[in-house]
Amino acid sequence: MSLLIKNGTIVTAVDEFVGDIFIENGKIAAVGENLPQHADEVVDASGKYVLPGGVDQHVHYSFDYKGERVRGFETSNAAIVGGTTTVIEFVNQEQGKGMAETIEKYDREEFSKLAMVDYSFHGVVCDPSDELFAEIPTLPSKGISTIKLFMAYKGLPFHSDDEAVFKALMAAKDAGVTVMVHAENADVIDYLQKEYLRKGETGPYSHALSRPPLVEVEATQRAIYLAAMADAPIYIVHVTAKGAMEAIRNAHNEGLPVYGETCTHYLVLDKEALAKPNFEGAKYVCSPALRTEEHRESLWQAINHGWLNAVSSDHCGFNWEKQKHMGKDDFTNIPNGSPGVQDRLAILWTYGVNRGKISRQRLVDLFATTPAKINGLDHRKGHIGVGYDADIVLYDPKPTSIISNKNSLHGVDFNIYEGMVQEGKVDKVFLRGKLMVDNGEFIGKMGDGEFIPANAFGLCYQERKEKQAVGV
Amino acid sequence: MSLLIKNGTIVTAVDEFVGDIFIENGKIAAVGENLPQHADEVVDASGKYVLPGGVDQHVHYSFDYKGERVRGFETSNAAIVGGTTTVIEFVNQEQGKGMAETIEKYDREEFSKLAMVDYSFHGVVCDPSDELFAEIPTLPSKGISTIKLFMAYKGLPFHSDDEAVFKALMAAKDAGVTVMVHAENADVIDYLQKEYLRKGETGPYSHALSRPPLVEVEATQRAIYLAAMADAPIYIVHVTAKGAMEAIRNAHNEGLPVYGETCTHYLVLDKEALAKPNFEGAKYVCSPALRTEEHRESLWQAINHGWLNAVSSDHCGFNWEKQKHMGKDDFTNIPNGSPGVQDRLAILWTYGVNRGKISRQRLVDLFATTPAKINGLDHRKGHIGVGYDADIVLYDPKPTSIISNKNSLHGVDFNIYEGMVQEGKVDKVFLRGKLMVDNGEFIGKMGDGEFIPANAFGLCYQERKEKQAVGV
Amino acid sequence: MSLLIKNGTIVTAVDEFVGDIFIENGKIAAVGENLPQHADEVVDASGKYVLPGGVDQHVHYSFDYKGERVRGFETSNAAIVGGTTTVIEFVNQEQGKGMAETIEKYDREEFSKLAMVDYSFHGVVCDPSDELFAEIPTLPSKGISTIKLFMAYKGLPFHSDDEAVFKALMAAKDAGVTVMVHAENADVIDYLQKEYLRKGETGPYSHALSRPPLVEVEATQRAIYLAAMADAPIYIVHVTAKGAMEAIRNAHNEGLPVYGETCTHYLVLDKEALAKPNFEGAKYVCSPALRTEEHRESLWQAINHGWLNAVSSDHCGFNWEKQKHMGKDDFTNIPNGSPGVQDRLAILWTYGVNRGKISRQRLVDLFATTPAKINGLDHRKGHIGVGYDADIVLYDPKPTSIISNKNSLHGVDFNIYEGMVQEGKVDKVFLRGKLMVDNGEFIGKMGDGEFIPANAFGLCYQERKEKQAVGV
Amino acid sequence: MSLLIKNGTIVTAVDEFVGDIFIENGKIAAVGENLPQHADEVVDASGKYVLPGGVDQHVHYSFDYKGERVRGFETSNAAIVGGTTTVIEFVNQEQGKGMAETIEKYDREEFSKLAMVDYSFHGVVCDPSDELFAEIPTLPSKGISTIKLFMAYKGLPFHSDDEAVFKALMAAKDAGVTVMVHAENADVIDYLQKEYLRKGETGPYSHALSRPPLVEVEATQRAIYLAAMADAPIYIVHVTAKGAMEAIRNAHNEGLPVYGETCTHYLVLDKEALAKPNFEGAKYVCSPALRTEEHRESLWQAINHGWLNAVSSDHCGFNWEKQKHMGKDDFTNIPNGSPGVQDRLAILWTYGVNRGKISRQRLVDLFATTPAKINGLDHRKGHIGVGYDADIVLYDPKPTSIISNKNSLHGVDFNIYEGMVQEGKVDKVFLRGKLMVDNGEFIGKMGDGEFIPANAFGLCYQERKEKQAVGV
Repeated sequence: MSLLIKNGTIVTAVDEFVGDIFIENGKIAAVGENLPQHADEVVDASGKYVLPGGVDQHVHYSFDYKGERVRGFETSNAAIVGGTTTVIEFVNQEQGKGMAETIEKYDREEFSKLAMVDYSFHGVVCDPSDELFAEIPTLPSKGISTIKLFMAYKGLPFHSDDEAVFKALMAAKDAGVTVMVHAENADVIDYLQKEYLRKGETGPYSHALSRPPLVEVEATQRAIYLAAMADAPIYIVHVTAKGAMEAIRNAHNEGLPVYGETCTHYLVLDKEALAKPNFEGAKYVCSPALRTEEHRESLWQAINHGWLNAVSSDHCGFNWEKQKHMGKDDFTNIPNGSPGVQDRLAILWTYGVNRGKISRQRLVDLFATTPAKINGLDHRKGHIGVGYDADIVLYDPKPTSIISNKNSLHGVDFNIYEGMVQEGKVDKVFLRGKLMVDNGEFIGKMGDGEFIPANAFGLCYQERKEKQAVGV
Repeated sequence: MSLLIKNGTIVTAVDEFVGDIFIENGKIAAVGENLPQHADEVVDASGKYVLPGGVDQHVHYSFDYKGERVRGFETSNAAIVGGTTTVIEFVNQEQGKGMAETIEKYDREEFSKLAMVDYSFHGVVCDPSDELFAEIPTLPSKGISTIKLFMAYKGLPFHSDDEAVFKALMAAKDAGVTVMVHAENADVIDYLQKEYLRKGETGPYSHALSRPPLVEVEATQRAIYLAAMADAPIYIVHVTAKGAMEAIRNAHNEGLPVYGETCTHYLVLDKEALAKPNFEGAKYVCSPALRTEEHRESLWQAINHGWLNAVSSDHCGFNWEKQKHMGKDDFTNIPNGSPGVQDRLAILWTYGVNRGKISRQRLVDLFATTPAKINGLDHRKGHIGVGYDADIVLYDPKPTSIISNKNSLHGVDFNIYEGMVQEGKVDKVFLRGKLMVDNGEFIGKMGDGEFIPANAFGLCYQERKEKQAVGV
Repeated sequence: MSLLIKNGTIVTAVDEFVGDIFIENGKIAAVGENLPQHADEVVDASGKYVLPGGVDQHVHYSFDYKGERVRGFETSNAAIVGGTTTVIEFVNQEQGKGMAETIEKYDREEFSKLAMVDYSFHGVVCDPSDELFAEIPTLPSKGISTIKLFMAYKGLPFHSDDEAVFKALMAAKDAGVTVMVHAENADVIDYLQKEYLRKGETGPYSHALSRPPLVEVEATQRAIYLAAMADAPIYIVHVTAKGAMEAIRNAHNEGLPVYGETCTHYLVLDKEALAKPNFEGAKYVCSPALRTEEHRESLWQAINHGWLNAVSSDHCGFNWEKQKHMGKDDFTNIPNGSPGVQDRLAILWTYGVNRGKISRQRLVDLFATTPAKINGLDHRKGHIGVGYDADIVLYDPKPTSIISNKNSLHGVDFNIYEGMVQEGKVDKVFLRGKLMVDNGEFIGKMGDGEFIPANAFGLCYQERKEKQAVGV
Repeated sequence: MSLLIKNGTIVTAVDEFVGDIFIENGKIAAVGENLPQHADEVVDASGKYVLPGGVDQHVHYSFDYKGERVRGFETSNAAIVGGTTTVIEFVNQEQGKGMAETIEKYDREEFSKLAMVDYSFHGVVCDPSDELFAEIPTLPSKGISTIKLFMAYKGLPFHSDDEAVFKALMAAKDAGVTVMVHAENADVIDYLQKEYLRKGETGPYSHALSRPPLVEVEATQRAIYLAAMADAPIYIVHVTAKGAMEAIRNAHNEGLPVYGETCTHYLVLDKEALAKPNFEGAKYVCSPALRTEEHRESLWQAINHGWLNAVSSDHCGFNWEKQKHMGKDDFTNIPNGSPGVQDRLAILWTYGVNRGKISRQRLVDLFATTPAKINGLDHRKGHIGVGYDADIVLYDPKPTSIISNKNSLHGVDFNIYEGMVQEGKVDKVFLRGKLMVDNGEFIGKMGDGEFIPANAFGLCYQERKEKQAVGV
């Protein structure tokens, strides 16, 4: 089974040219001009940009909030019609169970049957027992090479204190497992939440006020210090505050292996959205909270320079009518998270590339190449290169439309980008060479996606240190 | 005429894989696994790394010091046996003449007949007249898109004061011409030189002492401010001091379009080399001066993170026996500059990649991809990608040898890396598909190199500003 | 009762001159040249420096470690023979009791009967109950205007988490109570301590290794962020790490009301002291741990520029033979703290003033004037000025001696400065006009010291904000 | 002849108390409560603040612009009615003459006959000859301990290039002479001025546009680097730009002896004043130019923290009707400088102290104490302390008035603070014990002021280095 995509404008993180891609057995076998290979199928990509399929390293398809699950992999067609061909799902460790055990059970019973994109896993530490720390070094052998801890959410089972974070760093580093953290100061948030409730300010806007930028800056800086003391890499998820970004940048300046992502919505949406009337603000309740223009500008700078190295969606499919309304009278009960997996590429294209914030090369790097690399998937994902999985997006730059939930496949009753202009659209998407989206419509089926085991990216850091120790 | 390079480990700035490269008419036509194309010639690259030919953006093949010319393009086989397939030559504007006029005369009468690598030009401002500033915007139409000014060298004709630098920035920016500066404080150097001579400290080591790091830091910072006031990009050549690197890094933090390179020797040689007895120290006299370990460490960090974006050679073929000895009794008469065009790749490979300082991807980026991009040559050079010139290096990682001037083709009587270990070696080099080096031996001929017109890279900055002005 | 001190070289934080001081009823009534006032007693201070009596804002005279009390106010003659006339004692709140209640009981039953210097109090939060936070605003009415929390010491009753620190800041700010913190990351220390014990490294040196500088830097930075979020001043006690000092300095740059002290021993003693054989290292076990030369240099810079604004002793009179030996087989059982109240002035004079680190004016400021001000005692203490308490030290700069525990009055069996040269000596000390030390010998008696109620220094910050709010 | 000032609220840089000052032979002989001394005269200061007479370290009473002199010492009653009792005058070295020679001639022939305040001198380098650099170390013996160079003003005789600044630093340092610089990039200003004229934008506002903040930031940073290379202290006059302040602050962080002042008008006036119609903007033409709110806020922070250590007036008495109008058609011909010597105290009091920006202690420090110290006058000036000259101001905090040129004694036809509210007023001023201002009216006479020789402040830095070299 072979495929030839002809005459598209192929964009990688490093170059851009008009050419052909020859695909055999789901892999990219050749890239060239006027490739002579015979193919079973030929697709004309003239006038389209040909991008690697996106890697969304931050999605929640199995998150449970007070017994209410978010929409799961049964809506992952939303990802692929938006140009994302691989997602990395956060699975919460079950209390008293091993991490791999939890994940494998989920995968076997649910994800593998539903997925319409390829996927990999981050294990979320919920039960920081000695057994867990002993298990961490064994995870890469099962294709799980990243774990996450929540410094936020005081009182919830998945909250981790400094002890857990530090132990996780120590347990993970020699095996090259990357530790990720959700960095917010749980105690201060808890205090402020109670204050706002006490004052009767129970609406969604209090969510933003009770999570000021400094709660994020503080925890980010703390996480960096913890990692420095452990001599381990660390990855800060969903960076939103200028000061947090600067803490990461400063860490780079000192040569520390600190990484960080931001998310689509933090680049284009404003904190004032939470003030929308009729409880509409609840749609925008996510953590950290949306920020102001000054912060957004600094995030664009950061992704352009590589101080932050990925843009993910932090997709979380809570329903407004039902789930978000659990916090109608108390903003602390609004489940945190908003959907966005479908719109990541279009937003980056429209408000990034077309507004002069980033080049197309940077877009590809942030959307696919580096997320794949940092998460140990770059042996197969994130790049249009020989030997890579043939995950390919044809993006048509010409049409202009308005984003609307009517066109969203995420299975939720709202879209946080509702009404925003979108320039260009995803035309076709191939997953390992198979056409999954055609003319913008999903034509694949549940179960088409498969699990991609992740390599231990953190080993790079160990290897570098060993080489350096040899000296000149 | 076609060529197939098979089974090499192809390295680009973004990926690495075993594959084939199909070349037709001197261009890369396809990259793939087991490419089926028929080729006139097939080269087996098994066990070799296949790299893009290097772009050395900083060479001096026509520099004249007190009537004594350095060795010129007749020695440019040294470049290509070292894996560099494109050099950018600095041509000093002749007094009273136009920049293009000066360059074109040189090219017609000399370079085009001698070159054994492809080449492009930086114009060095020597006569900052109104005519020259009027000419600058027209240079890209002649394939000259970069100009350089010397903030150092008080009293010499090519010294530029702040007025000249600022005028150059203002003249260049709308046309996308990039201004480069050699940043050292000329007045302080002049004072210190006289002091050392007055004290009778006339040997080469006084060269280093009279050019302390702060003379470079100051001028670098000044150049950045001048560029910021002009709202123009600027490129700092041969950054050597930690403080200068930090000034550039800080400029990035403020979103300024500031770029910078360092050079091979600043990464591996120490200031104490200038103290070698019997006037051997003179071999290491270049400007800025060699530094200490602390500075070198900071430079490795900088190239790894991209705060500096290229490593060039600043090759300058002065003979020791004759030209360097012009300063036997007065170090200020030692011509500044040392050869190094041949050793750039081997040094970066051995002391960068093999010592854990940089990855092979970073090496390719610093050695070829970004220098090509920054200098407007990335429409043809610096990358193994479809449509690019087939400038390709096969690097054999296995042999280990000792660097010696006996094996140097630069036509000069010394090598500053003499005696250092080299790991791996350049095996074959193709220039636009033509085999120029085989088994490490030069087999091309003079005149094989050709002029590559440079696009105006700086236009990117103008375009970005325009897009941003549109707003969200 | 009046007193005239004649012809001394009077040093204040701002000036220095030869003159007389006229004292009436224990207060400074006049300062001048050849004062004509008749006095009951006249002291000739020719050839002596006349300094304000020191304010040591950090002493522990009632600390209890596993049922073993440190030496208390019965040894406070050590303070006054060393030139310190006021100490501020940390009293640990008793569980289930109010802060003022705890302090007043101690004072009534013990301190007031023993004290040979004047004293004031910091209340240490040990039971962060709602009652305590309600009590905090009332403390200034009882002359207690500073409270302290320990971010360090996981598992001990006086350890505070971020919630307690933040609540304290919020409770304190409107009343102008200053919150002080001992800033070290308790979780990381706990982890590292266990690691060293596990590895069998049970000696005193492991104390330093398990408290690396970053545990202090992290917690200092965190405390600053917590204060910024509370919009409250904060005071970091015993700053020892360069990075912690820099965090404070950076906070100044952003206009935040952040203060900090260092202590005498951190300026002159090295971490390697903990490696002394025969368990002698235990004498130097204090927290944070002693550091290296690089840190000390940065601390001298910091106190000279005012980034840190006081030098205290953190005096803690644990006996080596008995109390320190509780940790003979396990360094985590060595009580933390060392005596030093007697040597503060001599060390600052010898290693500060006489080594060109600080001027005499700065010494006075750090030793007396600013500690008095920051702790709300400057209505009476810390300065040779009209209306101030006549707490006066005559320092003879001529004699040179060797510091030895034989001459120490602190009642402990060792002196951490043993064997160091001391230049100059305290000759006479007056407390509220009464001669307490003569020719270096203590001649006062227990109970001569009295409680000095502290004003709420933090109100300055509130007032400034109110004035600024008026605007221009 | 003796004097007793009773019951005022005496304010120094370090304290504040109600008390008396006894003055004998023009010196402060005693400070106290209810001083018993008999005095020939007694002044009741109840309800008044008693401050040290101001030291204005930056005035121009002899500046000549194109043959037109500013108003000189014959108007120095303006200084003293404003609470300034000592000014430091900048004298421009005459071409071909020695510095001391120039200054002494001026003094003998003019200043000594006119001065109504005490005065000292800064020598302005105009002819940077070898003879001058040889003279510099001899200047302190003549009471001249500070020299100034203009980095700005390209083409004018007093412009200095880097060579002159560096030579001055090298010549001055061992003698403890402090080098001051007016830091602006002359070349860029020159270019921009020509541009604005070319575009026909010839009015006063173009003065501000052609001197953007970065011209000051650049030159300030350059001056700091030059001083660092010379290992000499440096003093930056009239700092106005946030970035320049930050450069000084950063230098402190590295332990460099860098000092800086700002001026009254930069704290309260806005750049938009230059846009006033009918050429009124010309009144506000001074260099550096007035800035915006952001810069002013940073200057207030800087003087509060001591990053800048003095506030001077940069008083320059050009007449608007005649002298300022020399630039009616060409802003580059508007003489640079505005009067302000009379209003410095009232502005600092009203907009500093009363608006919560600085405390009264800081006001005294910035207005008198530190300017005296930095300029080597603190053996007599700047402080209410025993032995100091009895230069004393009684400030009445109660009255509120409007600043108007009608009440200005500076002999110029405008006041840049016209119409601003002033809170409080200078009631009485004593110069060396003599009442010069009574009820706000000048009652002294020309010639009452005298020359105060300045000590070499810079020797402190040399001494500190020597002591430090001894080591611990």
